Amino acid sequence: MSKPTKHKHKKHRYVLPSPGSSPGMVFIDENSVEPHINLYIYNENYYKVEHLENIEGLKQRLTDKTYNYWIEIKGFNSMSMFETLTKDWNINKLILEDITRTYQRPKYEEYGNYDFAVSRMLFIDEENGLENEQLSFILTNNVLFTFQDKYEDCLDPVRNRLEIGKGNIRIGGSSYLMYALMDMIVDEYFTVLGTWSEQLDNIEDRLFEKPDKTIMFDTQLIKRNLITVRRVAWPERDKMNDILRTDSAQIDEKTKVYIRDAYDHCIQIIDMVESLKEISASNIDMYLSIISNRMNEIMKVLTIISSIFIPLTFIAGIYGMNFSREDPVTGKVLPQNMPELYQEHGYLYTMIVMGLIAVVQVIYFWRKGWFK
Amino acid sequence: MSKPTKHKHKKHRYVLPSPGSSPGMVFIDENSVEPHINLYIYNENYYKVEHLENIEGLKQRLTDKTYNYWIEIKGFNSMSMFETLTKDWNINKLILEDITRTYQRPKYEEYGNYDFAVSRMLFIDEENGLENEQLSFILTNNVLFTFQDKYEDCLDPVRNRLEIGKGNIRIGGSSYLMYALMDMIVDEYFTVLGTWSEQLDNIEDRLFEKPDKTIMFDTQLIKRNLITVRRVAWPERDKMNDILRTDSAQIDEKTKVYIRDAYDHCIQIIDMVESLKEISASNIDMYLSIISNRMNEIMKVLTIISSIFIPLTFIAGIYGMNFSREDPVTGKVLPQNMPELYQEHGYLYTMIVMGLIAVVQVIYFWRKGWFK
Amino acid sequence: MSKPTKHKHKKHRYVLPSPGSSPGMVFIDENSVEPHINLYIYNENYYKVEHLENIEGLKQRLTDKTYNYWIEIKGFNSMSMFETLTKDWNINKLILEDITRTYQRPKYEEYGNYDFAVSRMLFIDEENGLENEQLSFILTNNVLFTFQDKYEDCLDPVRNRLEIGKGNIRIGGSSYLMYALMDMIVDEYFTVLGTWSEQLDNIEDRLFEKPDKTIMFDTQLIKRNLITVRRVAWPERDKMNDILRTDSAQIDEKTKVYIRDAYDHCIQIIDMVESLKEISASNIDMYLSIISNRMNEIMKVLTIISSIFIPLTFIAGIYGMNFSREDPVTGKVLPQNMPELYQEHGYLYTMIVMGLIAVVQVIYFWRKGWFK
Amino acid sequence: MSKPTKHKHKKHRYVLPSPGSSPGMVFIDENSVEPHINLYIYNENYYKVEHLENIEGLKQRLTDKTYNYWIEIKGFNSMSMFETLTKDWNINKLILEDITRTYQRPKYEEYGNYDFAVSRMLFIDEENGLENEQLSFILTNNVLFTFQDKYEDCLDPVRNRLEIGKGNIRIGGSSYLMYALMDMIVDEYFTVLGTWSEQLDNIEDRLFEKPDKTIMFDTQLIKRNLITVRRVAWPERDKMNDILRTDSAQIDEKTKVYIRDAYDHCIQIIDMVESLKEISASNIDMYLSIISNRMNEIMKVLTIISSIFIPLTFIAGIYGMNFSREDPVTGKVLPQNMPELYQEHGYLYTMIVMGLIAVVQVIYFWRKGWFK
Amino acid sequence: MSKPTKHKHKKHRYVLPSPGSSPGMVFIDENSVEPHINLYIYNENYYKVEHLENIEGLKQRLTDKTYNYWIEIKGFNSMSMFETLTKDWNINKLILEDITRTYQRPKYEEYGNYDFAVSRMLFIDEENGLENEQLSFILTNNVLFTFQDKYEDCLDPVRNRLEIGKGNIRIGGSSYLMYALMDMIVDEYFTVLGTWSEQLDNIEDRLFEKPDKTIMFDTQLIKRNLITVRRVAWPERDKMNDILRTDSAQIDEKTKVYIRDAYDHCIQIIDMVESLKEISASNIDMYLSIISNRMNEIMKVLTIISSIFIPLTFIAGIYGMNFSREDPVTGKVLPQNMPELYQEHGYLYTMIVMGLIAVVQVIYFWRKGWFK
Repeated sequence: MSKPTKHKHKKHRYVLPSPGSSPGMVFIDENSVEPHINLYIYNENYYKVEHLENIEGLKQRLTDKTYNYWIEIKGFNSMSMFETLTKDWNINKLILEDITRTYQRPKYEEYGNYDFAVSRMLFIDEENGLENEQLSFILTNNVLFTFQDKYEDCLDPVRNRLEIGKGNIRIGGSSYLMYALMDMIVDEYFTVLGTWSEQLDNIEDRLFEKPDKTIMFDTQLIKRNLITVRRVAWPERDKMNDILRTDSAQIDEKTKVYIRDAYDHCIQIIDMVESLKEISASNIDMYLSIISNRMNEIMKVLTIISSIFIPLTFIAGIYGMNFSREDPVTGKVLPQNMPELYQEHGYLYTMIVMGLIAVVQVIYFWRKGWFK
Repeated sequence: MSKPTKHKHKKHRYVLPSPGSSPGMVFIDENSVEPHINLYIYNENYYKVEHLENIEGLKQRLTDKTYNYWIEIKGFNSMSMFETLTKDWNINKLILEDITRTYQRPKYEEYGNYDFAVSRMLFIDEENGLENEQLSFILTNNVLFTFQDKYEDCLDPVRNRLEIGKGNIRIGGSSYLMYALMDMIVDEYFTVLGTWSEQLDNIEDRLFEKPDKTIMFDTQLIKRNLITVRRVAWPERDKMNDILRTDSAQIDEKTKVYIRDAYDHCIQIIDMVESLKEISASNIDMYLSIISNRMNEIMKVLTIISSIFIPLTFIAGIYGMNFSREDPVTGKVLPQNMPELYQEHGYLYTMIVMGLIAVVQVIYFWRKGWFK
Repeated sequence: MSKPTKHKHKKHRYVLPSPGSSPGMVFIDENSVEPHINLYIYNENYYKVEHLENIEGLKQRLTDKTYNYWIEIKGFNSMSMFETLTKDWNINKLILEDITRTYQRPKYEEYGNYDFAVSRMLFIDEENGLENEQLSFILTNNVLFTFQDKYEDCLDPVRNRLEIGKGNIRIGGSSYLMYALMDMIVDEYFTVLGTWSEQLDNIEDRLFEKPDKTIMFDTQLIKRNLITVRRVAWPERDKMNDILRTDSAQIDEKTKVYIRDAYDHCIQIIDMVESLKEISASNIDMYLSIISNRMNEIMKVLTIISSIFIPLTFIAGIYGMNFSREDPVTGKVLPQNMPELYQEHGYLYTMIVMGLIAVVQVIYFWRKGWFK
Repeated sequence: MSKPTKHKHKKHRYVLPSPGSSPGMVFIDENSVEPHINLYIYNENYYKVEHLENIEGLKQRLTDKTYNYWIEIKGFNSMSMFETLTKDWNINKLILEDITRTYQRPKYEEYGNYDFAVSRMLFIDEENGLENEQLSFILTNNVLFTFQDKYEDCLDPVRNRLEIGKGNIRIGGSSYLMYALMDMIVDEYFTVLGTWSEQLDNIEDRLFEKPDKTIMFDTQLIKRNLITVRRVAWPERDKMNDILRTDSAQIDEKTKVYIRDAYDHCIQIIDMVESLKEISASNIDMYLSIISNRMNEIMKVLTIISSIFIPLTFIAGIYGMNFSREDPVTGKVLPQNMPELYQEHGYLYTMIVMGLIAVVQVIYFWRKGWFK
Repeated sequence: MSKPTKHKHKKHRYVLPSPGSSPGMVFIDENSVEPHINLYIYNENYYKVEHLENIEGLKQRLTDKTYNYWIEIKGFNSMSMFETLTKDWNINKLILEDITRTYQRPKYEEYGNYDFAVSRMLFIDEENGLENEQLSFILTNNVLFTFQDKYEDCLDPVRNRLEIGKGNIRIGGSSYLMYALMDMIVDEYFTVLGTWSEQLDNIEDRLFEKPDKTIMFDTQLIKRNLITVRRVAWPERDKMNDILRTDSAQIDEKTKVYIRDAYDHCIQIIDMVESLKEISASNIDMYLSIISNRMNEIMKVLTIISSIFIPLTFIAGIYGMNFSREDPVTGKVLPQNMPELYQEHGYLYTMIVMGLIAVVQVIYFWRKGWFK
């Protein structure tokens, strides 16, 4: 029996807060990378990307209200950056903690002159399997900050659309850009679920062709991943709903029509997850019933063979006994001992009896349907 | 053991949005068919169907308020058609996206001077099994648009009623026609569920007569289809409720009594789905207990046969041993070796002992109830 | 093994609407019986039953407000009767559809000058098992209509009370009579559940005495019937609640105290159903664990017998080998071949060794607890 | 295998209303006992118990508002008593029905000048197992009636506290006494759950030491009893909540602080029930996995023994064949028949081969981990 | 098969109220320890800890409003202490009961001039496994009381922060200190869950490497602990919510931002618990399927060996029969008895036939995939 290759289930460990640390403390993980900062300046007719070394003094530069600004921060390994955010931009420390402790649930919170939001990017990485990363947003008038801990993400299509400038993306203002990024992330969920849906179809095909024990492992792996998606999609839906219902000044009313669309997408995601979970469960049920059936088949083979041959062997054993007609020591003659052995057609009759026993049993098992 | 024929589970793949595409973009699937457009003009006394090549300039024609108009569009493969809808009819782009991405949940949305609704048609196609298609509605005063991606549907009875003109259908206005179509679709769910209900009854009969492993596959297939219906019926119910509670100018108050009826039907559908799911589950439980029982039966046969004959064979084996009373080499006489073989009725006694052992075992198994 | 008798699970098929038929169309099933109409005229001091041929012109007769009238209609096979209801009594066509399509959920609806309600009668018929029939009510001032498709029902006790005239029944007005009928129906649920509760107790007893596979079938049958009751009891409860909260002129305020009592009964029914479902599930769990245990017992017998006798048979087999001490062809003497056979106490020692092996194994299995 | 002793699962049958009987009819069960009536007269400084024969004329006696009165009625077998309640105390007949049909859920209802409440006493009786009895309350100003069908209950500690007079019990008024009784009943639930919690711990210990099939029965019994407690605790909680929210004149505001405490206790009960249910389920899971594991062990023993000795027996069988080197009839010499039997070390070599086969198999099974 | 070491599942028994005791009675468990009282006096610039013998007269000392006071009470074995609380601080007796009966659910209650709250500390003790202890709070202006029954807790980090004085902790007032303690406790839940998450990963690894029956026990143990956490986390979340929504004068508005953060943490805890529960369930499913698969493997070995060798042994048995060609008694010659034994190549042919049977069976099993 082939051993299943250890499945690549990426364990999504939590970066736990060190218990008892002060709330509102920026937490920089030892694996954090150097911040990589891009400043996108754009409006309907203008587009420019600048790479920045740090964000000091940036606030003073971003005064022209005819432009929108997207400050994209990747990597948190710079204490001074967060200090600047507190000092220059007056961001609450609890928010900075939420940004750096990247295990937040999706949420949307208003803080007066800025809004804070968290999305979770799920995307499949060739090497590591499902990636589950946090993208945090701070939205304040025409400035949008995004924060992510690693360089990899799934946001390039939005960056491209921003560069090309087609559609609403340069016209809609900063809240539209935030929506576009959030929607991109939700769209990526569809891609992820699509991959697993295909894998489940493959597993189903294998169930019919050659069910082996990897089916169990593979299905369980998908089931766990589905749990991850569901855990993300429900608060994501709530977040969209919160944005829909807010009357925060940061969120453009025109953007809300789009948010409602994204809200619908979240519901579809939850729907798909539930369906895929039920399909997984049904695959597992099927697999377990296949194992049981197979056991039945194995036992049938054993029982048929044993039931036929054990009694026959017994008969053969009887006529292999050495009961003697004449005691070699005393010379006494005992013709009543095993006279069958000396009958004219004793062997033939024995073989016929054996054959009959076998035939009767075969018929019995046949009628029980054990040969089907 | 017969192999189950691969079941025809139509995989309802999702036409996924290409992630990162602009929201509100019309999506034309590569399998989309050429649009096939019918214009129904009718009132209480008048009925006419026109086949149209395109919908350009249509708005200018449909000005007579004494008629109702139903513009039926099948097939989306025409970009210009959607552009006309935006230009002439002023339809929001997000709606056009929803129409063309045919994986929407049933819903009802008001957009001021028109309403938008989605129904999902479920019907059983001889070849492909369960079909799950989207019918989208745009309702604006006395004009009703319907959109579907394929030519096949389950709406002919409504078309016939419209032609014959009996009942309310030509009097009730466009919102009544929309209701009639929606109700037709929900009624079709009953037909679909009826088919499966019958199949489940058949499976139940097979459970009693000849349970084999196709039962598992067939039941699982029905279970999945039931999941599809439930996923459609819940939002369908919500949609009906939304229409009931709206005060949109598009929905005639008189139509609402009928909508309430359709709402009741949705609840009955959900009820039936839950019942059928429980029956499926109970069939599977029954099947698994039958497998277990069968295993018990198989093992009983093996155990009875083995337990009786293995000890007997052992006894036969003993008297088949060649312990000798006289060493042929040394000539030493050993009368204590296997004296039974030379006793007067050794063979008879042995056979009696064997018979007794067998009888004792048969009685033992009989009293354990293993022969029942 | 005894074959379970095919259980009498009455399949509650739905009389499906022919899809696409106009809403509000009276539906007369092909099995419908001729209407059988009784008119009960009563007040505190008066009681009379009249058998009617049809209900034409009835409205004109029932003008005396000092009497209450109950028009009991059994059997729907008369189109003209329904037309009279529409014409004379001005009943909405959708209601007539609901009356004739007898798969409605319990409900209560107000239509201005009359109220409409549906109850579902559940009662056990000796022959057919659980009957699930619809009783529809139209209540308008001092006139109560009831509609049922078949002649059999469970309402005789109410008819008797009405005739005898004890208690509130002739004083309480038409809404009290409606309550009395509804309450009778709910009381009958208790009887039905009581029957199953007893059957479940019997099944439990059989689990202890002689568990066989009919247990599974019988329990599943009860489980399905319980699902039917639950599907009826929940909307029944909602119906009672709706009547409690209505301010319809048809419902006497004094009757509401009684309705609240009936509402409590519904909750008790739901409670009992849940309990019985849990007991069914627990019986099934128990049965499955008994099957597993029995399998273990069977395997233990096989393993003990085989483990003891197979090695012994092997030893007997060794000494049954014909290795020869003297080649009969060449005459060569080989005293090293099987010297045990010619030892003085070879046979005795062999038997002792065999006995020891058996004893060791018995002790081993004993200590493993396999004999318990 | 030991047979489990039939467990003492007291079947809580329902005293069903005879269907169709008038609502509001007092129901006296045939097993009802003669009423046993105590009148407690008490205030802060006074305490007296009187045994009464009947309650006629009692109302006229209980006029002194400086005392509180508790009329405790045990046993319902007196129609006249209930008639007095209707006549003198003006109690609604539906309430009397609820009192005598002792299968009510816990509830609290206001009827203007008196309040009605139901509690369910759960306590463990040495002989009968779990008792589930109804205690009904009628509270009207400074008079509290309690009704119970049997003499046994779990209320003695409250009677003692009332006699001793410590704490709030004589000061708090009649609504406090009602609370004290209700709280006593809820406290008794803790005792009951504590007993089962201990039993579950014992079962868990047996799972580790000697798992046998009584585990299944005992756990299922506890599970059913837990269902009973849960069915009582939920409406009990709702009742407490209803009392908390009422503005009935019967309930002293000061008592409500205590009711809130009792409400908390109900939630803790529900909590404990859920935990114990999960522990039961986990015990059953564990037991089933132990059965499966044991089956594996049994099969391993069988397979190891059979796999080793069946091939060896076959080899012994070969050399037990009687192929002859010389036809005794024709005298033809056939030295090619079974020459191994006549080789110099034929026997030794055979034994070595057999030993090798056994060793190889033992190693094979060892490496498969079957000896662990 | 190795026996699992009895797992250290600490049974969380409830200290049950002695039923019938007066409500509001302080309950001192026989295992209660002597109270150990610390008074922390602090403000932004000042910090001092005093060890107190008792709390008599304390109220008179704590009058300086420029300081905050934390009175930490560990151990309840002093009736006089509780009396002082009633007398000096006017604390409701029901609260003292809740403090001393340490099985309360987390809750928050306002009592006018003080607030009462309960948290449950969960932490893993090396020796005893999961500890589940109650920490009760009484908050009144600038004085915070905490009560715990044992000396051990998980609050040292907060004490350290208070001593060091960094961050908000000395500035935020008494309600902030209460928050800090509560948050510390919730943070500790993360640590606890982290430990189990790691253990579940280990179990998963063992599933792949050497699945044995300890997996079941270990997973069930974690599952039960998870139930404990969930039972604590839900009311903890509700408590935070209650504090958020209160307008009690005791709770500083500025503290509420932090409480909202702690509320988020509670939701994350519940989330994690659900995930870990699903992972546990999936591990158990996996384990059970591994057992089933292993059974299949065992049975395959048995069936292959038996099916091949039992028929062969039968053939060997046939040729071991002693049918004789010449009756030693009568001297009659019977050449038709077992002529195969005397054929020229009888032995060779027999061996070939046996080999063929074996080969056919091996091919049969091979094609069935039983060797994989």
